[in-house]
Amino acid sequence: MFPYVSPPDESAKRDALARQDQLTKPAGALGKLEELGVWVAACQGVCPPRPFTRPRVVVFAGDHGVAAKGVSAYPSEVTGQMVANFLAGGAAVNVLAATAGATVRVVDMSVASGTAVPDQVTEFKVRQGSGSIDHEDALTEDEVKAAVEAGKAIADQEADGGADLLVCGDMGIGNTTPAAVLVAALTGAEPVAVVGRGTGIDDQTWMRKTAAIRDALRRARQVSADPTALLRTTAGADIAAMAGFLAQAAVRKTPVILDGVVSTAAALVAEELAPGARLWWVAGHQSTEPSHKLALEQLGLEPLLDMKMRLGEGSGALAALPLVAMATRILAEMATFQDAGISGPADGPDSTGSSDSADAGVSGPADA
Amino acid sequence: MFPYVSPPDESAKRDALARQDQLTKPAGALGKLEELGVWVAACQGVCPPRPFTRPRVVVFAGDHGVAAKGVSAYPSEVTGQMVANFLAGGAAVNVLAATAGATVRVVDMSVASGTAVPDQVTEFKVRQGSGSIDHEDALTEDEVKAAVEAGKAIADQEADGGADLLVCGDMGIGNTTPAAVLVAALTGAEPVAVVGRGTGIDDQTWMRKTAAIRDALRRARQVSADPTALLRTTAGADIAAMAGFLAQAAVRKTPVILDGVVSTAAALVAEELAPGARLWWVAGHQSTEPSHKLALEQLGLEPLLDMKMRLGEGSGALAALPLVAMATRILAEMATFQDAGISGPADGPDSTGSSDSADAGVSGPADA
Repeated sequence: MFPYVSPPDESAKRDALARQDQLTKPAGALGKLEELGVWVAACQGVCPPRPFTRPRVVVFAGDHGVAAKGVSAYPSEVTGQMVANFLAGGAAVNVLAATAGATVRVVDMSVASGTAVPDQVTEFKVRQGSGSIDHEDALTEDEVKAAVEAGKAIADQEADGGADLLVCGDMGIGNTTPAAVLVAALTGAEPVAVVGRGTGIDDQTWMRKTAAIRDALRRARQVSADPTALLRTTAGADIAAMAGFLAQAAVRKTPVILDGVVSTAAALVAEELAPGARLWWVAGHQSTEPSHKLALEQLGLEPLLDMKMRLGEGSGALAALPLVAMATRILAEMATFQDAGISGPADGPDSTGSSDSADAGVSGPADA
Repeated sequence: MFPYVSPPDESAKRDALARQDQLTKPAGALGKLEELGVWVAACQGVCPPRPFTRPRVVVFAGDHGVAAKGVSAYPSEVTGQMVANFLAGGAAVNVLAATAGATVRVVDMSVASGTAVPDQVTEFKVRQGSGSIDHEDALTEDEVKAAVEAGKAIADQEADGGADLLVCGDMGIGNTTPAAVLVAALTGAEPVAVVGRGTGIDDQTWMRKTAAIRDALRRARQVSADPTALLRTTAGADIAAMAGFLAQAAVRKTPVILDGVVSTAAALVAEELAPGARLWWVAGHQSTEPSHKLALEQLGLEPLLDMKMRLGEGSGALAALPLVAMATRILAEMATFQDAGISGPADGPDSTGSSDSADAGVSGPADA
């Protein structure tokens, strides 16, 4: 379904590493911002990298049959209502995207019910809701294929439209339940290690959610070696589309900032569908959902932020987007020591304190 | 020298806390962004808070006599060269400020030598360099007063000019040495607990720096109960001006994002000069300098970012500025559940999965 994913460019990476040491700052003094800038240059295959002109969030919305088992603090009707809120610009994702300079696209993959929305929002819709994964498959074989292909097509549309940085957001009441099951199935974790408080559930709901995850995981483990079958048993069409989207973004060499547990669960599957895709992703933040940490560790990704967020929608990735933008512009726009005529590190006490050459405003490296 | 500092507004804080729970997201789901937004509302005394229109960085530059003892990897002439780089727009602070929507002001308080700069940059200049604090005072009594008053005047100029969020940056070869001594003097830490690698020093330089800090700390401890005397013995004019600036920003009810160890060392003194000023500050990041952690703990501030940065210039604060801007806009611009006609949390399994009322796109709370 996916062609070979080539890694980010090694030559641009080497150039970027060398350039970091020429910029007017002590080597390494910008810490992780320097690593991020090098990653962007490698993804773009050019150093200095180009500042982003079209960062883009795609929010995949869908409902989950398992929500009827009482695993969430909110009723399923909220999914469709929130889609309307995204389109009206009133949600967290809208405000965070506007502040970070990104635009938002909303895709209804499998919302159960909702308000009237423009046709392009439902263009890829596969079904309403999903099977209740504690005892039945989430999707049929045809539905899985359609959902993954939809995600792939959306990534292509965005790449063709000039998106140079992508974020994958989620909206769906009950969606941390399938996400937790996917993470457990692909990391070997026990149910109790992956169950989290989602939107903020009470102890009774937590027990129902744990039971649903335990039952769903029994079914998921049987197919965990086959990513498409795993999506069929466990994911909804929203999460299957996210997996296709994330895999195809890597095929199209477009860097992605991962969000919370739902997008990262989809990312785990995407890495199975298209091995090497993870090299095109950074982790925007550490969510408070316990399975998120397991998923990021499996992907070898270290989160940029730890803001105790647990909203989804792409919010944690968008909170980190300015850091990625800053890292890119640092490498693109800062002066080098040579440009600015600034002295390099000294050898020791004898070469400090000298200002003989400073009157001209330009000094050679003190150790030259 | 400073009038009473009143705390941020409790009534606006209460309104902001209540508003967070009405916005279209699960309560608390935006984690520290929610706390930050509440803090901004309290500082502004209004809820919802106003998005920032004039975030402003002031970089205080100065040289330090102790640099001649070989405590830094760079020669002192770099301070003046970097001032020229700031004015030309080529430094990290320029790029980070531009990305975050802030403007930069550079103030030469005590640069030893350098290129020609516009008069307004040296308007408040107190002297060239400072005494070598391992065996003599950094400044005279008159110089300390002039420097603190300069910082105070600059904060007034910025507040009068409409700055609604301030960052205090530093530039000065050798300045982590006085900063570490100030932190040790005010927290009771031992020299070895505060000495850090600064711009990236080798082991020989580290030993010289540790000896200088030990000697300077002996002198500083004798006056640690008197903030003005402590600035005289230990700080340069740059750090003394930062202390005045941070104290006066609080007097003027203008929120501040603190940067790394130098601005935070100045903040420790500012809190002594104007008790309560710390309630007007947030910590932008955790620097890799060990004394930064001690200083933040003493101030009761938890850093927003941990990016392994150690540059100064205001860089760590600017990296966090978008988070503060996002937090403010979340509270100002997100729709409430009522605005958007979105259902509240359900009571349990019986009230989930119902979509009877969703066709109209508007549902009352499920537990109503």
